[in-house]
Amino acid sequence: MEPSSASLDRLGRQIAFIVEVDKLKEIFRQTLVINSRRQENDAEHSWHLCLVVITLAEYANDPDLDVLRVLKMLILHDIVEIDAGDTFAYDTVGMSDQHEREARAADRLFGLLPDDQAADFRALWDEFEERATAEAKFAAACDRFQPMLLNLNTEGASWRKHGITKPQVVARNQHVAEGSQAMWERISALLDEAVANGLLPAQAPAK
Amino acid sequence: MEPSSASLDRLGRQIAFIVEVDKLKEIFRQTLVINSRRQENDAEHSWHLCLVVITLAEYANDPDLDVLRVLKMLILHDIVEIDAGDTFAYDTVGMSDQHEREARAADRLFGLLPDDQAADFRALWDEFEERATAEAKFAAACDRFQPMLLNLNTEGASWRKHGITKPQVVARNQHVAEGSQAMWERISALLDEAVANGLLPAQAPAK
Repeated sequence: MEPSSASLDRLGRQIAFIVEVDKLKEIFRQTLVINSRRQENDAEHSWHLCLVVITLAEYANDPDLDVLRVLKMLILHDIVEIDAGDTFAYDTVGMSDQHEREARAADRLFGLLPDDQAADFRALWDEFEERATAEAKFAAACDRFQPMLLNLNTEGASWRKHGITKPQVVARNQHVAEGSQAMWERISALLDEAVANGLLPAQAPAK
Repeated sequence: MEPSSASLDRLGRQIAFIVEVDKLKEIFRQTLVINSRRQENDAEHSWHLCLVVITLAEYANDPDLDVLRVLKMLILHDIVEIDAGDTFAYDTVGMSDQHEREARAADRLFGLLPDDQAADFRALWDEFEERATAEAKFAAACDRFQPMLLNLNTEGASWRKHGITKPQVVARNQHVAEGSQAMWERISALLDEAVANGLLPAQAPAK
């Protein structure tokens, strides 16, 4: 059932949004949770990113980071996947129209809210997508750092399933350094360990 | 495997904490997610609370609410359940030693972190538990408001499963009003509708 919020009062529209985005708990990602090895969903991923932010904010390149704005971006960043689905980080075909699909989703989902709040939340999502501000760069760094940590703690499960090599991981994730040089240096060292331990191929096999 | 973080450097200890609390995704609650009707886990619940905060902060009784501190409390508030398990909101037996079990869990889990950060996070959890500050009262209001919304959108599934009546729901949740009078008034009206629609008994059946 598609909720129609146009006839509701302000709080009613906000509640309709909160109820609708419950669906984020049903959008599954390629990364696995560590203990049960099931696929992680976007809602628990978003929580884990918030935890990474409050734990590692001290490593942001920008010492004046607005942590509240980083958290707001990450609470909202994947909501568009309710309509657009999850695009795997290494799916270059899916990525070609990803932004267009997600922008349509943002129109519909944030459109459930009162206009002023819809504009606020959309601006936060746009800021995250553009990755130009210090806050968006650090948010994006956390969004790449956490899946690598999960891969490193599940014997590289989603890398191995999809035949991902270290050069691909580096190419896709090196912008972590734009948000946090220290986090990038540490995860790079952990990637080297994963190569040494056979969890991540150093390069693609010769054809 | 129990992580030992004592020999690690600062960032190593922080990463060990981030990895350990991945287990929050495996702690299941009595409330059901709306579409698939499976039990919600604590990680996705925590994300949903963060979303409620940024959407409904304008209704906090305190107009000067520190939203960042509310979010930090809610990101951390259920981590203790990794060791202590989820205690159902209407389980008065389980509640008798709940705080003691959770305090031991807080010692172990926050103890993975560097000492200064362990103390910061423990102080946030203690503040949430004590429910004395405006931020803790609003965080607690969101933590009660969201499960009621899920119940209202799953035909009262967890209320009906456990034979919960409206007076029990009111007794357990009326402190929402301490954080937000407006949120309490709205949810009270929705509870009245649920009674009218037969999802929530007005009182316990005569014995």
